[in-house]
Amino acid sequence: MKVTKINHVAVAVEDISQAKVFWESILGLKLDHIEEVESQHAKVAFFPCGDSEVELVEPTDAESGTARFIQTRGPGIHHLCLEVEDIDQALEELKARDVRLINETAVVMEGRKMAFVHPKSSGGVLIELYQLL
Amino acid sequence: MKVTKINHVAVAVEDISQAKVFWESILGLKLDHIEEVESQHAKVAFFPCGDSEVELVEPTDAESGTARFIQTRGPGIHHLCLEVEDIDQALEELKARDVRLINETAVVMEGRKMAFVHPKSSGGVLIELYQLL
Repeated sequence: MKVTKINHVAVAVEDISQAKVFWESILGLKLDHIEEVESQHAKVAFFPCGDSEVELVEPTDAESGTARFIQTRGPGIHHLCLEVEDIDQALEELKARDVRLINETAVVMEGRKMAFVHPKSSGGVLIELYQLL
Repeated sequence: MKVTKINHVAVAVEDISQAKVFWESILGLKLDHIEEVESQHAKVAFFPCGDSEVELVEPTDAESGTARFIQTRGPGIHHLCLEVEDIDQALEELKARDVRLINETAVVMEGRKMAFVHPKSSGGVLIELYQLL
């Protein structure tokens, strides 16, 4: 498997309009855009940062993974997204190594394919894999 | 303040020799080196990843922040390190905005100056600021 970079670090927030003050106005990151990501039941604010991004993720459904994360642990870093060259091959390799996956096959979205690795298999780190299309 | 990139994402681990199997052998990241960072009471494994790094941090002192993090929340993503052009200026700006800091002045280390922002001021995210020297 070829991991090429950190695509983004996702931060779970209760309210993007409040949380973005710190990242935008205090840290001085530039907000690229805010987008509803329906498949993730979330509103996401994208802040490019060098060759990666910081993404603020506000759940729009109280049953979503991000909402439950906030209920349990409070807002904070939610997951690390690594970009890979070939996500289908990566998932096959992970399965062959008995790595537990949240998405057994890649989910195709606008411009990318993605899958989550279960934190039980990655030392408590929720890892998202991305392949840009 | 000018944030230029994500310098690294730090993952708290109980045992680097066990945890590195996932990052090195399964994800295929290249281990650059492992280093004792005495000021942080930790052993750190550095995995370059694109223009950033993933760092595995194993506490060497049961009273350290990373050790307490693991005791409370289990292993997982511990902090996000952002690189800034001028850390002294960044800390002055943060203080002027009433941002709570763990390090009120930058700690000078080999090749860098660093300071932690308190997660109370950054939406639950422990942020480290780095200026490379």
